Amino acid sequence: MHKRPDYSAAYVTIHTDSKYKGNGIGFTLGRGTELVVSAVKMLSHLVVGCKTSDIFNDFAAFWRKLVHEDQIRWLGPEKGVTHLATAAIINAIWDLWAKMEEKPLWKLLVDMSPEQLVSTIDFSYITDVITKNEALTLLKSRQVTAQERARLLKSRGYPAYITSAGWLGYSDDKIRDKCRVALKEGFTSFKMKVGTSLEDDIKRSVLIREEIGYECNLMMDANQRWDVEEAVDHMKKLAFSKPLWIEEPTSPDDVLGHARIARELKEDGIGVATGEACQNKVIFKQLMQANAISFCQIDSCRVGGVNENLAIILMANKFNVPVCPHAGGVGLCEMVQHFSFFDFISVSGSMEGRMIEYVDHLHDHFVDPIRVENARYMLPQLSGMGCEMKKETLIEYAFPDGPVWKKLQQSQQIA
Amino acid sequence: MHKRPDYSAAYVTIHTDSKYKGNGIGFTLGRGTELVVSAVKMLSHLVVGCKTSDIFNDFAAFWRKLVHEDQIRWLGPEKGVTHLATAAIINAIWDLWAKMEEKPLWKLLVDMSPEQLVSTIDFSYITDVITKNEALTLLKSRQVTAQERARLLKSRGYPAYITSAGWLGYSDDKIRDKCRVALKEGFTSFKMKVGTSLEDDIKRSVLIREEIGYECNLMMDANQRWDVEEAVDHMKKLAFSKPLWIEEPTSPDDVLGHARIARELKEDGIGVATGEACQNKVIFKQLMQANAISFCQIDSCRVGGVNENLAIILMANKFNVPVCPHAGGVGLCEMVQHFSFFDFISVSGSMEGRMIEYVDHLHDHFVDPIRVENARYMLPQLSGMGCEMKKETLIEYAFPDGPVWKKLQQSQQIA
Repeated sequence: MHKRPDYSAAYVTIHTDSKYKGNGIGFTLGRGTELVVSAVKMLSHLVVGCKTSDIFNDFAAFWRKLVHEDQIRWLGPEKGVTHLATAAIINAIWDLWAKMEEKPLWKLLVDMSPEQLVSTIDFSYITDVITKNEALTLLKSRQVTAQERARLLKSRGYPAYITSAGWLGYSDDKIRDKCRVALKEGFTSFKMKVGTSLEDDIKRSVLIREEIGYECNLMMDANQRWDVEEAVDHMKKLAFSKPLWIEEPTSPDDVLGHARIARELKEDGIGVATGEACQNKVIFKQLMQANAISFCQIDSCRVGGVNENLAIILMANKFNVPVCPHAGGVGLCEMVQHFSFFDFISVSGSMEGRMIEYVDHLHDHFVDPIRVENARYMLPQLSGMGCEMKKETLIEYAFPDGPVWKKLQQSQQIA
Repeated sequence: MHKRPDYSAAYVTIHTDSKYKGNGIGFTLGRGTELVVSAVKMLSHLVVGCKTSDIFNDFAAFWRKLVHEDQIRWLGPEKGVTHLATAAIINAIWDLWAKMEEKPLWKLLVDMSPEQLVSTIDFSYITDVITKNEALTLLKSRQVTAQERARLLKSRGYPAYITSAGWLGYSDDKIRDKCRVALKEGFTSFKMKVGTSLEDDIKRSVLIREEIGYECNLMMDANQRWDVEEAVDHMKKLAFSKPLWIEEPTSPDDVLGHARIARELKEDGIGVATGEACQNKVIFKQLMQANAISFCQIDSCRVGGVNENLAIILMANKFNVPVCPHAGGVGLCEMVQHFSFFDFISVSGSMEGRMIEYVDHLHDHFVDPIRVENARYMLPQLSGMGCEMKKETLIEYAFPDGPVWKKLQQSQQIA
């Protein structure tokens, strides 16, 4: 569905009267980035001039102020361009907070008292499945053994899976090569894209299985291409290759559609995964209520930032759905890893059946790029959320006046 | 939730090389209109230069081209700012088409062959509940008696209900006055706003029932204020006043929440209604699959224009859910009436339990304002979709440079 993405980002910087700054990203596929930038500017008057302590003391209230601005709200609510802009702003505030505390975001989160943590979450529209008190009780119970898990995480890291082996359009040899390299790097979970041609999907799945065997996990990603019945049919025909999950089989809005696909594929041992295009916590709530997903793919930029992702992680724990974040894009790996670390230490307490997506590109544009070693995300050491870009990148790739864009325009004019 | 709306609109004009123009509206509550305008501009290159015949010959394909532009799609998909912009453009094209045929939109629709009509609808993501063939069969079966219904509609009009009696914040006397005037005008269905204070809701419902009696319908609208359980509790306590429906009890994204509210209020005879903030046909599909709504409140500007509303009307018919459009705002009454007329003549074949919302404001800004007589919408006679604004209005109220805004700025400066 997204044939020619040109990974881009709206980049938010929050300045303070101290030495600290905060950054957030609104990830896009290229065209439309300006809309997110405009939406950020439109919301910025709600942030500029605020005291950080006022925000941090009742972050849920501040979050609601942004999300439910009483005129702009109509353009969502809690979805699309305005929610992407909210995410970029909210994440920049968390990045700032973590930097002020001189901790990586995951550490800021796990060091918080349960009371402080739940005070950042807006529970409205989800109290039918989780209340503030329920969340508190859970967080407190996990504190007992948290230190132990933090040590384990520090020494062993967190499992990653690789997507870059299975893009559409690669030659057979390139796919085999990519698989072999990834296996050598230690990967045991591989994702392939499906949905343009059944014949081609079958061929590539056979080929990948030949390389990785049946001990490794093979996941499939349809990027919303199918109608509900089409998804079931297509996956029944791919079931022989034992995929662990089918990701985004249909519209990300179709909770009941995902539930039906999940029901029909259960006997084949195929789970359903979605999240990167799920607009907010209300959609995630329903996906879990309806037993529609076996894997919860939170995204750092789609829903309204850290606060909303915390709510989703708590709900996933309640429904025993493992959180396996979506990443890739621009800086998504850098940001989303913090959520999995927090989930492991403070919420689910487990890495079982959990992994973070890994795509090996664009990391060199970040001040604190991810470190994936032996197919595991290792803990970042710098403070913040990981979304601060290098100065050179911000200058080089600025749209439309940065040197990279100028050069591109010139070369297009000559052609 | 929308405390200080300042009804506004992004206004789209499509020019052709003939004498015909088409207009569409992106209705907003004020701030954020610029975002919709920017999104329209961003999508406009997909429209400018097209031949109308190419669009009309495969309107579903053209609709998909706009909705699934492969980079901009990420910002939705099919929701929020980009979908509001799509609606404004798509409706402008329909307005143009109707004007080229010199018919009101409803007449253009009912005069189409069933084949032509279904060719405008993108059935993707809804084939699990309705297929093109199913829609064709239905439309053909309704043709037999269509003439008869068209005559009835022309002579008697279509039922309206009134919202302006029940706003929050009116004094008791004003509410009583408003009810009496509306009764005199022939209204038999009245809507009141609820959700800020239970005590106040009870008081006002008693007061309105005293005025309108129990022969008339009383509907309630919570504008998304409640969580799921809160909605049930609140409405149980208002059940004594026998409301016909509770509208927008919770998040418009919460299909399962609405389903639960509907189940729990069934014994009280209260139906659930929603739609004005439901982002697309996939949400409507699920609301009906889950028996979550008893009234389907389509909106002319929220989903992707006429084409998507046709799909929703066809699904509503399949699930026996009466279509009771949302209106008010700016030009929403003018536009949405066409859908009810089409529904009556070509789809449901019935006015039973159906009515169009009526709010008495801002009609004088339109070239072809609605005519509500004896509490019934009478057929518009001019061609188009009804969303063409008067030249004076476009000049006077242009933002930010029109005289009305200039004056406002000056008076604010003086103050």
